Amino acid sequence: MSTFQSLPGFREFYPEDCAARNGLFRAWREAARRQGFAEYDAPVLEPLELFTEKSGEEIRTQLFEFEDKGGRKVALRPEMTPSLARLVAARAGSLRKPVKWFSIGECFRYEKPQKGRLRSFYQFNADILGEAGPGADAECIALLVESLKACGLEEGEFEIRISDRKLWFYFLKKYVEEAKIPEVLSIIDKWDREPQEVLRQKLGTYWSDAQIMQADINTFMEAAELGRTRLFEWLDGQNSSQLRDRANDLDELLESLHGLGVAQFVRFDPRIVRGLAYYTGFVFEAYQKIGTARALAGGGRYDSLIQKFGGPDVPAVGFAIGDVTVTDLLQELKRPLGDVDKPDVYLVIGGEAERKTALELAGKLRAAGLAVDYPLYQLKENQFGKQLKTANQVDARLAVILGPDEVAKGQVKIKHMKSNSEAAFANDASLIENMRNILVNGLPV
Amino acid sequence: MSTFQSLPGFREFYPEDCAARNGLFRAWREAARRQGFAEYDAPVLEPLELFTEKSGEEIRTQLFEFEDKGGRKVALRPEMTPSLARLVAARAGSLRKPVKWFSIGECFRYEKPQKGRLRSFYQFNADILGEAGPGADAECIALLVESLKACGLEEGEFEIRISDRKLWFYFLKKYVEEAKIPEVLSIIDKWDREPQEVLRQKLGTYWSDAQIMQADINTFMEAAELGRTRLFEWLDGQNSSQLRDRANDLDELLESLHGLGVAQFVRFDPRIVRGLAYYTGFVFEAYQKIGTARALAGGGRYDSLIQKFGGPDVPAVGFAIGDVTVTDLLQELKRPLGDVDKPDVYLVIGGEAERKTALELAGKLRAAGLAVDYPLYQLKENQFGKQLKTANQVDARLAVILGPDEVAKGQVKIKHMKSNSEAAFANDASLIENMRNILVNGLPV
Repeated sequence: MSTFQSLPGFREFYPEDCAARNGLFRAWREAARRQGFAEYDAPVLEPLELFTEKSGEEIRTQLFEFEDKGGRKVALRPEMTPSLARLVAARAGSLRKPVKWFSIGECFRYEKPQKGRLRSFYQFNADILGEAGPGADAECIALLVESLKACGLEEGEFEIRISDRKLWFYFLKKYVEEAKIPEVLSIIDKWDREPQEVLRQKLGTYWSDAQIMQADINTFMEAAELGRTRLFEWLDGQNSSQLRDRANDLDELLESLHGLGVAQFVRFDPRIVRGLAYYTGFVFEAYQKIGTARALAGGGRYDSLIQKFGGPDVPAVGFAIGDVTVTDLLQELKRPLGDVDKPDVYLVIGGEAERKTALELAGKLRAAGLAVDYPLYQLKENQFGKQLKTANQVDARLAVILGPDEVAKGQVKIKHMKSNSEAAFANDASLIENMRNILVNGLPV
Repeated sequence: MSTFQSLPGFREFYPEDCAARNGLFRAWREAARRQGFAEYDAPVLEPLELFTEKSGEEIRTQLFEFEDKGGRKVALRPEMTPSLARLVAARAGSLRKPVKWFSIGECFRYEKPQKGRLRSFYQFNADILGEAGPGADAECIALLVESLKACGLEEGEFEIRISDRKLWFYFLKKYVEEAKIPEVLSIIDKWDREPQEVLRQKLGTYWSDAQIMQADINTFMEAAELGRTRLFEWLDGQNSSQLRDRANDLDELLESLHGLGVAQFVRFDPRIVRGLAYYTGFVFEAYQKIGTARALAGGGRYDSLIQKFGGPDVPAVGFAIGDVTVTDLLQELKRPLGDVDKPDVYLVIGGEAERKTALELAGKLRAAGLAVDYPLYQLKENQFGKQLKTANQVDARLAVILGPDEVAKGQVKIKHMKSNSEAAFANDASLIENMRNILVNGLPV
């Protein structure tokens, strides 16, 4: 046994794991392509300040950071958004708006490895920059739904919970000065996880009659949970033109999601506020609805970030899906994502005398796009059985037999592995077409 | 302008760059698939000792290495082979031989960035493990040729120079004790870059009559350069059964390359010895033949490495192509590798009243696999011109117009952008089929 091991929280991808990972990537790419998102990428190693600029010094506890041989403070990226912000900021003048971009990249966080959380993981990020209206939020949320569907998840297995930090801001303004609203939102973030008394006590530091404030918040949440009609009735009762206008944006968002055919995956849930201070509008999270309600993805609008990275005022909305929880869920559901490619053809070669003919055929078939494998070892005469066994083990669709008889006659024998039928064909220009036909239709038994 | 910048020697991939990179990856994957290689991957961050075990402490000058928050000495991988060796060593008992694996992964070296050399780059690695005979070397070299062809390189633009460290060992044995042969090989590695006097002086420390030794080496090189027939005549004259047997292996290798249809890309070149001490047999390098003769790839047989990583005795051969020089070359040749996906359809929407119909159509077309884009901003009435301009700018193949008239009639107007022709179609179940047809055949003008 090897004494060498990979680091804790890092994965090795043997072919089956790699095929599953690549299947996920393929699904994400395909969903993004259909919606007109273009792929970008950025370095996995970045200057440390890129990440502290967005998230503050506290992010450093989670970073793989070090000083490189040139004395630069650097870190492995914990997320894509700061790099994206830099890319867009640097070319904000020349990029056509809206920028609809996605990336699939490895990210790194020094956290305690546990189920659903590793130190290295892949993120699918999709963002729309340069469009402030809810149409962009809708297009992003639709891609989030379609990306999870493309992975193999179905209606009823996940949902997108949408909320709105603006609605919360406008609503909480009557209780709290604006600068302190994020603090109140972090109380609301724990609304279901802490006793009402504790919440009330916390609210008390912001408003004298915490009981009324708490009741008001609960009424809002309950109205929102009863659905759109009840929520809009509640909004009407609030007598705030800001809330009223914002309700129109929410209405437009939900209408667009309906139009795009994803409304059944979406639910307005005021409990989602998302911890990150940089979100400025609609926020959303994807949760699995079966088994544990784990978060599969999250995102929202972040209209101030590009400016923070030295760019102009570019509104932005986006999300990220991590690969670890999605892969866990799909494995629990026994829904495979991608299989290792099998050979179309395994060449069974009579002996060394027939190798040249066999290799020539391999070259031709491969040039025609077929996946071809054959024995690499020194052949003894008449090891047909051993090689046919290999053809079976590698799950080749056809075994193509080139024994002395076949070569003498300028033929090959083709064995269709699944049906166990075989027939002889001329080893000439017609062979590729015949073989393609057999791969699709099989051999007449 | 942003003051944030990426690190020196690291690349940002804007969509055009990312499409080119992904095109390269796709080409490599496709070449590997046809030859029955399966993809694997391993962590980009590994324990430091993994790399010093293979290459010694001197590799550390090139590494991005640090201590992680758990006090582990770690490094970003400078190459894939040590990780591959660990993966194979750990499952050597259960993996079916031969293992034919490839990977496409990012690697990192702290070197002075210059043309063709960056601090972060991608490597396509392909290896065959578990087969000692020259059939495996041939299959690897064939994949190297096919991978470079798949990138877009053609005959005459690159060549594979093959050499054999065993041939050199058996030949040099009469002059030097075995342990010192690697030192002599490092002299031969500089054979064309240093004056003959200097070489002679160096050889003098190993053999009293350096002039004879040098002449002997030159005769061998010249014979090899005159081609196979002359090389084998020379080998016959050497009166060494080891050299004779090895010549048979070389013969088998060249025969196999001929059979596989890649002999025209290959040349035996004894000057290739490859610096790395761990190679044990055939070695090869790919060079571009136009412009500067830069190395594009390198590889060879390394039969002792898996044991070094705690595994059993597993023979191995493999190669790596870096993406930087290949991409440079293809850019010089103006041979694009991959384009950013264009939308099949851009929806031109009369106004907000028609948005719902448009979004429903977008959802349907995307579900059918078409790439669909549309304006996300709040529409004013009759901005057809502006939107058609966008359809043109984003290079959409079709503009699908949904004005009030079309929606009232339950129709869409389809404009084929290239031919500038347009026609009305029913917006019903027949539309997707009609649209697919137009995408293939265009519209009757």
